[in-house]
Amino acid sequence: MAEEAWGKWGKEDERGALNYIGADEVRRAGKLVKTGKVISLAQPLSPETPVPNHRGPMQHFMQRDGGDYAAGGKRPGGFQFAEDTVVMALQFGTHIDALCHAWHDDKLYNGFSSHGTRSTTRAARCGVEKMGPIVTRGLLLDVLDDGKPLARGAPVTRAVLEQAATRSGVSVECGDVVLIRTGWIETMLADPHYYDGEPGIDVEAGRWLADKGVAVIGSDNFAIEHIPFPKDTVFPVHQLVIRGYGIPLLEGLVLAPLAAAGATEFLFVAGPLPFVGGTGSPLMPIAIL
Amino acid sequence: MAEEAWGKWGKEDERGALNYIGADEVRRAGKLVKTGKVISLAQPLSPETPVPNHRGPMQHFMQRDGGDYAAGGKRPGGFQFAEDTVVMALQFGTHIDALCHAWHDDKLYNGFSSHGTRSTTRAARCGVEKMGPIVTRGLLLDVLDDGKPLARGAPVTRAVLEQAATRSGVSVECGDVVLIRTGWIETMLADPHYYDGEPGIDVEAGRWLADKGVAVIGSDNFAIEHIPFPKDTVFPVHQLVIRGYGIPLLEGLVLAPLAAAGATEFLFVAGPLPFVGGTGSPLMPIAIL
Amino acid sequence: MAEEAWGKWGKEDERGALNYIGADEVRRAGKLVKTGKVISLAQPLSPETPVPNHRGPMQHFMQRDGGDYAAGGKRPGGFQFAEDTVVMALQFGTHIDALCHAWHDDKLYNGFSSHGTRSTTRAARCGVEKMGPIVTRGLLLDVLDDGKPLARGAPVTRAVLEQAATRSGVSVECGDVVLIRTGWIETMLADPHYYDGEPGIDVEAGRWLADKGVAVIGSDNFAIEHIPFPKDTVFPVHQLVIRGYGIPLLEGLVLAPLAAAGATEFLFVAGPLPFVGGTGSPLMPIAIL
Amino acid sequence: MAEEAWGKWGKEDERGALNYIGADEVRRAGKLVKTGKVISLAQPLSPETPVPNHRGPMQHFMQRDGGDYAAGGKRPGGFQFAEDTVVMALQFGTHIDALCHAWHDDKLYNGFSSHGTRSTTRAARCGVEKMGPIVTRGLLLDVLDDGKPLARGAPVTRAVLEQAATRSGVSVECGDVVLIRTGWIETMLADPHYYDGEPGIDVEAGRWLADKGVAVIGSDNFAIEHIPFPKDTVFPVHQLVIRGYGIPLLEGLVLAPLAAAGATEFLFVAGPLPFVGGTGSPLMPIAIL
Repeated sequence: MAEEAWGKWGKEDERGALNYIGADEVRRAGKLVKTGKVISLAQPLSPETPVPNHRGPMQHFMQRDGGDYAAGGKRPGGFQFAEDTVVMALQFGTHIDALCHAWHDDKLYNGFSSHGTRSTTRAARCGVEKMGPIVTRGLLLDVLDDGKPLARGAPVTRAVLEQAATRSGVSVECGDVVLIRTGWIETMLADPHYYDGEPGIDVEAGRWLADKGVAVIGSDNFAIEHIPFPKDTVFPVHQLVIRGYGIPLLEGLVLAPLAAAGATEFLFVAGPLPFVGGTGSPLMPIAIL
Repeated sequence: MAEEAWGKWGKEDERGALNYIGADEVRRAGKLVKTGKVISLAQPLSPETPVPNHRGPMQHFMQRDGGDYAAGGKRPGGFQFAEDTVVMALQFGTHIDALCHAWHDDKLYNGFSSHGTRSTTRAARCGVEKMGPIVTRGLLLDVLDDGKPLARGAPVTRAVLEQAATRSGVSVECGDVVLIRTGWIETMLADPHYYDGEPGIDVEAGRWLADKGVAVIGSDNFAIEHIPFPKDTVFPVHQLVIRGYGIPLLEGLVLAPLAAAGATEFLFVAGPLPFVGGTGSPLMPIAIL
Repeated sequence: MAEEAWGKWGKEDERGALNYIGADEVRRAGKLVKTGKVISLAQPLSPETPVPNHRGPMQHFMQRDGGDYAAGGKRPGGFQFAEDTVVMALQFGTHIDALCHAWHDDKLYNGFSSHGTRSTTRAARCGVEKMGPIVTRGLLLDVLDDGKPLARGAPVTRAVLEQAATRSGVSVECGDVVLIRTGWIETMLADPHYYDGEPGIDVEAGRWLADKGVAVIGSDNFAIEHIPFPKDTVFPVHQLVIRGYGIPLLEGLVLAPLAAAGATEFLFVAGPLPFVGGTGSPLMPIAIL
Repeated sequence: MAEEAWGKWGKEDERGALNYIGADEVRRAGKLVKTGKVISLAQPLSPETPVPNHRGPMQHFMQRDGGDYAAGGKRPGGFQFAEDTVVMALQFGTHIDALCHAWHDDKLYNGFSSHGTRSTTRAARCGVEKMGPIVTRGLLLDVLDDGKPLARGAPVTRAVLEQAATRSGVSVECGDVVLIRTGWIETMLADPHYYDGEPGIDVEAGRWLADKGVAVIGSDNFAIEHIPFPKDTVFPVHQLVIRGYGIPLLEGLVLAPLAAAGATEFLFVAGPLPFVGGTGSPLMPIAIL
């Protein structure tokens, strides 16, 4: 695996493929607003939202609530209010992986040392706060198999993506956010085996998207790529596209409503929360049709 | 204080003034994308981000990081990754207040009982997950005093808002998100007295905006309204606009870059994280010019 | 269920049966130190420690660690250190239930209103910080069935407790901490069904112990009493002994090493962490033989 | 600084000076129970408990409480209960430092690599779960200056400790827990400058105690040793006694009640919570007179 996009936007760049999105791409995307329909691509977030075994579930606590007042809490000037706190992994629910999330050989995207990511400093380089807002054209590539969800482990190949694009009458272009619908989340989210494997893109599909200059790759599974991995590899798509090409990944998307609306291209907007040194962020990606 | 908008969108409505935004408003806003410039209105989020005294600061922990590998952690197939967890109030940094956040007389917006908001259930009604994506026209009303930030406690009146709109050549319309710039956050965020008071709108300004049909009111302070409050009142604007009119509030906005760009109206997009039963959500509101 | 011990130690008392322990009881217990053997009765605490479904697991994060230095962190004057933070329910692992933990009819032990226990105040009355150190005679009542663990749901009756005491040559006296060994924790802790039910004392056994004046009841299960409960009751032992008699409960004890040492009576010491307004505390109870 | 006690209890030893406590020391200590008076040496723990700047404060959340029922929560079979969760640094309030807490040259006590302490594994060696119960003779060395608290930065020397022992008629012996009272916590805990420095033992006093074979050193300050440190050193006592001698430290003790009771020697009992891989533990140390 090479360092495909290292240095492409300068030695200090921490934004990677998001640099493909310039004012032209934003204006082009703005013109896609036609019906005025707006669709959230985010899962609801709660202690019941599934998490992989190695992460703790979200916890959500009320610090002040209606029960306080019911039990006699004071309401100065009549005022009552509620507030709450969460404990939450940043790779939770519908979220984006920052470029510091995955790497190999102790080097992140663009050659930054992974030694800058540690308990005390968090990610000194390529943290999620470096991403900024994401506003560009979104494409939906629906790769369901005759309307049926793909099976666990099924690879989504370059050919499959090309066929989906042809069916939709769109072509993948530089600066696009490409959203790949496998049907996995609707089929499996409620299943205890949701995280045991998934359909998703393979390395060549990842490379094809990357070479097209996509800004972000998203999918309705938990890790973009098919699992089990090909023999003797571990998260090869993550390694290639995040580290090599500097492409952030959008995981856990809810894409069925977008497909149901017949959307193929649209204005895509997402605002990763700027956690300083964070490895990712839960967010609500939005499609505007 | 009356129940101005209760029942307006049906007895079961939990979205309040966001209902003013329909497909027409979205399409109209989409047409405001002209230069392709994109601006985040969000503060960075870190353990150093100021919080009011009654809330704990954010905590941000690495669960796996570059230090693990530096210290000899295994990297199966060469793969290395980092992940992290936060402890965070939902009313933190740049955030939106859901309609369950403030009320009086044990009744939330639209008459829902505040008894439904408690430790075990969180907010059964008007939680932040009911809001959905916010996509509409944004207006910047810059009320700085000859370029100088307003002083602590200074009320922003209806007349001041009207003059600002006139200066900008815009008029507040139904479905708009109105962002009011006081200069407070730039002047005071680093000051230990940031939360001790602030300039902000008064009740009549709030009512004027509400009667115009604005969908959301935002500002670059921590609580929208001027503090100290008028004598014998406590958060009167919160009580009026959140509970009476069903208008969510956007607090802690960073508006200086928007002002510097000369923006007056723009496509506004925000995606509140859908925490089930949450009283609000940190988010990254986005202005697209 | 009556209010057996209400008022017994005054209207303001929040310590309940711990009041049975006076200087005499401590001195008597001190004399039980004979062999000098010391045994911890606590489970190890980690993210893997089982928790009931309605609670989140413990999370344990390093804030600074050896990985930081391995990755280049500064070591002023050569000094290196590590520190960490946990997210943890107070009813976790081996823990004590404070008197505010369980009640009915909106009244805690001694008639305090349960309205004083809420999100903002935590427990205003009978919190774990009111308990103080527990130092007294401990008795082990081993109720295994011919050396075999009791089955889920098996009630431990008064007769069974009396027989166990007889076998051990001890008699339950005022101020004792009584520890009941069922074998449940060793048999089931690693089983996903650990929390689905358990053997434990029944109401009459609880009343018998309470009438003897025991200061604390402990067991090697998760809730002291047998589950499933008798028909049409819910945690009847909790309701009786915590609320009626003011007796704290010690749950999740590890008693096999104590049994293996042949201990029957011993100096018992436990220090509940004084969380202000907490409903309980993980702790390390100690038997000194 | 040498490795004074490395290898003394074998190459795999992780308990250090706690090994000095054997059955004889426990029995000897048991005989010190005379009056039956029991004293907690622990601070109350709450979100208001002071923490150093680099750590977050404790947070304490109710998950179920009396407010729930006041607001209409169900009480099956009449049963009501409350539970709660804390977010808490393990070096919080009155706590013990495990042997993995401080080191230099990438080597912990007994030569274990500090690389075993990292985000994913926590402390593989010398974690607090390796300590077990602490039961031995406690000595109070009261070093107040004519009844006045020592000043910030004041070193407590070997001579001062020897004089205090002489005054009390005790001599420091192998296996003792030595508690040094400076008056700092009562004077300063409520002061915002509590953590800016403190009186405490110097290196030679630490070495003298260590060479006597003490099992634990405790004090009523936050870091045992005097701060500011001697020129060009950083936590020299921590480095010497924790790493070199394998002696755990007890910090944040409340010793005034013990002094008020006229205690000089007593049965000391403490149960560090066995957090697997933890760097320390809040606890309630107990003196039994």
